Amino acid sequence: MKVAVVGANGQIGRHLIKLLDDSEQFNPNAIVRKEDQARSFKAEGIAASLVDLEASVEEISEGLRGADAVVFTAGSGGATDSDKTLLVDLDGAVKTMEAAKQVDIKRFIIVSALQAHHRENWNESLLPYYAAKHYADKELERSGLTYTIIRPGGLLNENGTGKVSAAENLSRGSIPREDVAKAIYASLTEEHTYNRGFDLISGNKPIEEAIKEI
Amino acid sequence: MKVAVVGANGQIGRHLIKLLDDSEQFNPNAIVRKEDQARSFKAEGIAASLVDLEASVEEISEGLRGADAVVFTAGSGGATDSDKTLLVDLDGAVKTMEAAKQVDIKRFIIVSALQAHHRENWNESLLPYYAAKHYADKELERSGLTYTIIRPGGLLNENGTGKVSAAENLSRGSIPREDVAKAIYASLTEEHTYNRGFDLISGNKPIEEAIKEI
Repeated sequence: MKVAVVGANGQIGRHLIKLLDDSEQFNPNAIVRKEDQARSFKAEGIAASLVDLEASVEEISEGLRGADAVVFTAGSGGATDSDKTLLVDLDGAVKTMEAAKQVDIKRFIIVSALQAHHRENWNESLLPYYAAKHYADKELERSGLTYTIIRPGGLLNENGTGKVSAAENLSRGSIPREDVAKAIYASLTEEHTYNRGFDLISGNKPIEEAIKEI
Repeated sequence: MKVAVVGANGQIGRHLIKLLDDSEQFNPNAIVRKEDQARSFKAEGIAASLVDLEASVEEISEGLRGADAVVFTAGSGGATDSDKTLLVDLDGAVKTMEAAKQVDIKRFIIVSALQAHHRENWNESLLPYYAAKHYADKELERSGLTYTIIRPGGLLNENGTGKVSAAENLSRGSIPREDVAKAIYASLTEEHTYNRGFDLISGNKPIEEAIKEI
């Protein structure tokens, strides 16, 4: 099963690429924005495609072609302004959904943010980002794709523990990026996660078990 | 018929308020953000309510209560950054839709932008704005409200001519704000405009005739 990871050069993306590359079941395609990022994945023997999320749906679909699933974990990041939040986190995500459909990919996982589905719980210091994620998620729910919306809490760089809490609604919490990648990995073919969204923070349950119980 | 005009202090809003106030059929409620704007409408004998589009759906619904229709012509404007584009033009618009439903208002007209429904035709110098309008319009289409999406071309401050071109798809053009207000006014109870969107630029047909032919 070939998995296109959009935002492969991000921290969650790199953890996920490694998990997919180490597995028997999956083959990753690292979707990145810059030539040197693609070269660096290819040097490790990992397939990579150049895609600019500000390009057209047609151009994005060329990068996704041949994949069986898409994981969208790209983000404009904190260093850019809300222009990019609108054009990458929202419109770039929706264009990626449209591109996936154009090349007959059915499975789509997006990395969102804790409680993005409940406006009253948006992080006050990140309101524009939350708005972008909220509307991207809503478009995904109506896309016809077999989706999973993973909404992690505050992202940490420390090593994963492999133990999480996953549910439709959780209180604020944090989680290592490595554990987010593991939850994406575990969700890819787990039908219990199809066409639903869940909050995800560090907790007490092994990841595979936790996502079977959401 | 009571019409809540969200963004009444804007230029299209002020033209529209005057049309509604001069009519037999309609009564306007000027929805504005600042106390002095509300005072200035009230001084002219026009009902006004204070609403902050960055507030909660519940607070917005208080400002709309009692109206039979909502016209959303608010915009964060060119002087603010894309944070406000996301929080006002997109999320503020969608919160206003949710608020309208909470107080049982069925009719909702939004002022969008020419070709906002076709990403490939977005104005290159206004991409974040176009993205915000696009997704607000999509939410409106799915809201269950009886909507009309009016997508004017480049807005001019000169006097209206009363003559327009209106169709689902038009090439780039411009239109006086006064004529946009007249098109909103003419659409309010024109069933031919219910649950559809149209581009609007200056043209050759009287406004009422043009919108009956879209």
